[in-house]
Amino acid sequence: MTKLSPLQIERLKYQPKLPASLQNGVNSLSMVEGAATESVRDQEQIKALFSNTYGKPTVTFESSPVSKESEVRNVGVILSGGQAPGGHNVIAGLYDALKNANSSNKLYGFLGGPSGIIEGKYVEFDDEFINAYRNTGGFDIIGSGRTKLETEEQFEKSLAVCRKLNISAVVIIGGDDSNTNAALLAEWFVKHNAGIQVIGCPKTIDGDLKNEQIEISFGFDTATKTYAELIGNIERDANSAKKYWHFVKIMGRSASHVALEAALQTQPNITLISEEVQEKKMSLSSIIDYMTDIIVRRANAGKNFGIAVIPEGLIEFIPEMGSMISNLNDIMASLESDSEFVNATTIRDKFDIVENRLDTENAKVYKSLPALIKGQLLADRDPHGNVQVSKIETEKLLIEMISTKLAELKEEGTFIGKFSAQSHFFGYEGRCAFPSNFDADYCYSLGFNAFALISFGMTGYLSSVRNLTESADKWIAGGVPLTMMMNMEKRHGEMKPVIQKALVRLDGPVFKQLQDNREDWAMNDRYLFPGAIQYFGPSSVCDITTVTLQLERAKQLASV
Amino acid sequence: MTKLSPLQIERLKYQPKLPASLQNGVNSLSMVEGAATESVRDQEQIKALFSNTYGKPTVTFESSPVSKESEVRNVGVILSGGQAPGGHNVIAGLYDALKNANSSNKLYGFLGGPSGIIEGKYVEFDDEFINAYRNTGGFDIIGSGRTKLETEEQFEKSLAVCRKLNISAVVIIGGDDSNTNAALLAEWFVKHNAGIQVIGCPKTIDGDLKNEQIEISFGFDTATKTYAELIGNIERDANSAKKYWHFVKIMGRSASHVALEAALQTQPNITLISEEVQEKKMSLSSIIDYMTDIIVRRANAGKNFGIAVIPEGLIEFIPEMGSMISNLNDIMASLESDSEFVNATTIRDKFDIVENRLDTENAKVYKSLPALIKGQLLADRDPHGNVQVSKIETEKLLIEMISTKLAELKEEGTFIGKFSAQSHFFGYEGRCAFPSNFDADYCYSLGFNAFALISFGMTGYLSSVRNLTESADKWIAGGVPLTMMMNMEKRHGEMKPVIQKALVRLDGPVFKQLQDNREDWAMNDRYLFPGAIQYFGPSSVCDITTVTLQLERAKQLASV
Repeated sequence: MTKLSPLQIERLKYQPKLPASLQNGVNSLSMVEGAATESVRDQEQIKALFSNTYGKPTVTFESSPVSKESEVRNVGVILSGGQAPGGHNVIAGLYDALKNANSSNKLYGFLGGPSGIIEGKYVEFDDEFINAYRNTGGFDIIGSGRTKLETEEQFEKSLAVCRKLNISAVVIIGGDDSNTNAALLAEWFVKHNAGIQVIGCPKTIDGDLKNEQIEISFGFDTATKTYAELIGNIERDANSAKKYWHFVKIMGRSASHVALEAALQTQPNITLISEEVQEKKMSLSSIIDYMTDIIVRRANAGKNFGIAVIPEGLIEFIPEMGSMISNLNDIMASLESDSEFVNATTIRDKFDIVENRLDTENAKVYKSLPALIKGQLLADRDPHGNVQVSKIETEKLLIEMISTKLAELKEEGTFIGKFSAQSHFFGYEGRCAFPSNFDADYCYSLGFNAFALISFGMTGYLSSVRNLTESADKWIAGGVPLTMMMNMEKRHGEMKPVIQKALVRLDGPVFKQLQDNREDWAMNDRYLFPGAIQYFGPSSVCDITTVTLQLERAKQLASV
Repeated sequence: MTKLSPLQIERLKYQPKLPASLQNGVNSLSMVEGAATESVRDQEQIKALFSNTYGKPTVTFESSPVSKESEVRNVGVILSGGQAPGGHNVIAGLYDALKNANSSNKLYGFLGGPSGIIEGKYVEFDDEFINAYRNTGGFDIIGSGRTKLETEEQFEKSLAVCRKLNISAVVIIGGDDSNTNAALLAEWFVKHNAGIQVIGCPKTIDGDLKNEQIEISFGFDTATKTYAELIGNIERDANSAKKYWHFVKIMGRSASHVALEAALQTQPNITLISEEVQEKKMSLSSIIDYMTDIIVRRANAGKNFGIAVIPEGLIEFIPEMGSMISNLNDIMASLESDSEFVNATTIRDKFDIVENRLDTENAKVYKSLPALIKGQLLADRDPHGNVQVSKIETEKLLIEMISTKLAELKEEGTFIGKFSAQSHFFGYEGRCAFPSNFDADYCYSLGFNAFALISFGMTGYLSSVRNLTESADKWIAGGVPLTMMMNMEKRHGEMKPVIQKALVRLDGPVFKQLQDNREDWAMNDRYLFPGAIQYFGPSSVCDITTVTLQLERAKQLASV
C-alpha cells in the first residue's frame, strides 16, 4: 500500500467542477457552430498546408434535453513537453466523460510522451489507476516527453498503433509546439482517411498559449501562485532582516508572463520583462543602470534591501547579448574541433580565443562579462550545439555587474549604502504542485470537453473552456480549430506553420498594471504576501484566479 | 490603506488556541513549583556564574478559581536573530495577556533586535498596530538584529532605557545564543537589584533549541513544511520528466534537524546528515562514493533521476574539510596582507599560493576541490575574517565531483546511464512563511505564557509550552530556568556559559526512521508530496505536527 501525504489523501476526494453545459455528460449535449475561421496570419499558406482541416468554425456546447446513444470508442491520450499542474485532471476528466458516455469505451495512455504513440507503448486506464491521480500534480501517471510528432514515418507508425488498439481519437495535451504537431497529425489522418480524430488541450505554465478563444493555458495559475508564495516569503524576510537584496529568476524562456504575474501578486521593487527589454532595445548596461539607480535611491532612503524579479529568458532578449550568443553558436562547432581551443591550458586562454574569433562588437560584449558567465556560455550546449541559455545564471551576472558599478559609485561618493545580494531560481518548484482549485476544475473541464468534441466527430480542434473569471458552472465549453491560431515562422532556417506564441503585450492591461506602479513599488515597500496555495477554506482565498486573467478578461469584456 | 493578499486578510481573523490553563487569563492562574534544577553539565561553574538565578525549580501553571488583582506593568519585547514563522504571534499573545491582566499595562517593542534596548529605540504597541500582524510571518513588526547582549556596558544602557520607560520585565525571543544572553541579563538585573525580570522564548527554524522541557522551537514546523512542499514538488517533477537528479541544499548551519525533517516528510533517494558524517568521520570521497553508488544502481535500474537532500552546514562536518577550513581561517589574515597573494594576476595563481601555505594534508584537500569551490573559499569572509561556509555551494561541489567520478566509471564501463543535475538551495523561502496553525497557536501560547511567568515574578526562565502532540487545550504551560539548559563551551578561545545546542542524535528515533528506510527510499521511489501548508480544511491536513516532534514525543512518553 502506497503511503500518501495527508493533503494527497484529502485532494483525492475533491470533485472538480464542470461548466453547467457538461454536467449531464456528453450524451446530453448539442453543438452550436460559429462562423468559419481564418488563421491569424498567412491565411493562404496555412490553408494550403491544412486543406482538409482549415477554415472550420468554432463550436460551443449547450446541454440538450434529448439524450443520445453513444457508439463505442477507444481513445488515446498523450502528455507532451514540460510538466504543468493539472495534467492528471485533464486525463481524469477525459476518462470520466468517456466512461459516462459508454462504459465499454476505453482510454489508453501513451507512455513517455509522443514517443509512446510511435513506439506503441501504452497502458489502459481503469478506475483504480485513475483515482490514485485525481487532483495531483505531475505528469507521472504516464510520463511525458519532448519527441516532436512531425514526420511522415512517425505518422504512419502512430496510425499502425492506433489501428492495433482500435483507437479512433487521440488527445494531445501540450503547449504551442505540441498542438502544432496535433494540427499536423489531424490533417494527416484526414488526408489518409484514417478515421482518427485529434484534439489538443492547452498546457503550459509559461502562459504563452492563449488568444481570443483560449483565455489561459492550464498550469499557469498554480505555478505562478507557487512562485508568488516564495517571492512573498522572501520579501517578508528581506523586509525583516533589512540587509539583503534578493535577485529572483523565474522560469520562462521566451514570454515573461510568469515573471509578470508573480510580480503583480507580490509587488517587488524591481521587475524586468524580456519583451520590454527587446522592444525598447535595452542594452545590458542600461539594465544595470536602471537597477543600480533604484538600489542607490533605496540606499539613500536607508534601505539596503529589496527584491528584483528576473525572467529566465532575459539574456536572449538583450539585443547585443542575443547577437553575441548567436555569433557564439555559429563559431562553437568550429572551435570544438580547433586544437588550440581544445588544448588551451586555462579557461582564461579559452576566453581569449573566443574573443579573437567573435565579430568585433560581439567580442566586446563577451569580454565585458564576468568570468563565471563567460565560462557558462562555453560550458553547456544543447543537442544542436547551441548555448544553453537556461544554464546561464543571469541573476548572478546582474548581481556581479551591479556590484562592480556600485563600487565605482562608492569611489565617486555617490553611493553610501551596502549591497549584499542573494540569488534564487524558481522553476521546478512550481511545475508539479498540486493543482489549485482553479487548475483542478479547469483541467478536468478541458479533458471532459475534449471527449465532447470527440463525440461530435471533431478533429484538429483545441479543447476550449472560456468565461473563466466566472464560477465554473458559467464556463463556456467548446472548441477552436487549431489552424485558426497558426502562422508561418522560420524554424531551423525553414518557414513552418506554427501556433503563434502569445508574448507579453506592452500595450496590454497586465503590463500596464506593472508600469503604472513600478516607481511606487521601487521606492516604497508595497510587498504583498500571497502565502501558500489554499485548497480549502474561504472562497476569496482558495478560488481566486490570476491577476493576468482578471485584467485580460476585464479588458476583453469591456471591448465587447 | 495597505493592500493585503486574500490569505493575509483571512489569517488576520484567525484566533490562535491556548492551553486550557491560560484560557481565563493570567489573573486566574496558580503556579506549581517542581523540584530545584541543575544545569545539564558543569554545574559548579554555571552555579558560580549565575549565583542569583541558578537552581530554581521548573514551574507549571494551573487555572485557579480565585481571580487576583494585577499590578500595572510595563514590558519590553525583543526579536533576536534570524526570522522564524510565528514571531509576530509571540508578541500578540504577550500583548493580549498583558492587556487582559490590566488594561493600563503597556507593551514596548525594541526596534531592530537587541540593539533597540541598548540604544533606546522602541515603539509602544496598541490594538491597531498588533492586529495588523496577527498570524503573519516575518519579524517586520519591530525588526530583528544580531547584536549580542553580553557586556557590562550594554547591560547598563539597557537598564537606563528600561528605567526611563518604567519597564519591569523584558521578553527576549531568540535562539540558543539569544537565550544565553537572556540568562546573563536576568542574572545581572537581579545582582544589581534592578527589579527587572527577563523571560526568554524558544525561537529557531533550525530546531536545535530543545531538550526535556522544550519539545520544539517555534518556526521549525512552518519552515520544514515549506521546504517539504518544495522538495515534494521537485520529486514529482523528477519522477515525471525522469531526466534530472536534483540536489537540494537545505538551510541549517550546524544541526541537520531541518534536512532530516524535510526528508522524512518527502522520502527522497539520498539524505545526508551532518552529525552522521561527523560521527562516522566520513571523508568527502566516501560521501561521493556513497552518493555515486546510489546513482549508478538507479541508472542500472533505468532511473537516471533522483533527489538528494543536503544540509547547508555539511562541509564543516566532513573532518578533512573542517580541518582545511580551519587552517585556511588561520592563514587568511596573513595572506590578505601578503603582496604576492594580493597582486596575483589570476585566481589560479592565488590557488597555488594558498596550497603552498596550507599544511600538507590540508593543501591536498584544497587542491582536490573544483575551481568554483576553491574560489568561493577565498571570496567571502565573515566579520571575523573567517570563511563564510554558507556561501560555499556544497550542492554544486557534490555534483561536480560526482560527475567526474561517473565519467571515470563510464570509461571503465561500470556506469552506463546519464547524469544531469539541477541544484537548489532553500532557506529564505521558509523563514517568513505565514505560520502554520501549529506555529500560530504555539507562538501565541508562548507569548501569553511569558506574561504569566512575569506576573508571578519569575526571571531567568524560558517560556515553556509542552505536551504538543495533543490538542492545544491539553498543552501544559509553565517555565524552565534558563540555567538548567546551560553548560560551559569554548567560544573565541574562552570557556563561556552557553545553552547546549541539540544536535541530531544518531541513537534517537528520528534518525532511526531515516536509517531504517534509507535503502528502500534510495532505490524505490517512495516520494511523498506534502503540498503547500494548509491553514483551513480537514484537521488531518492543517493541524499536523512535524514527524520529528511526533517521534520524539512518542519515545518520551514510552520512557515515562
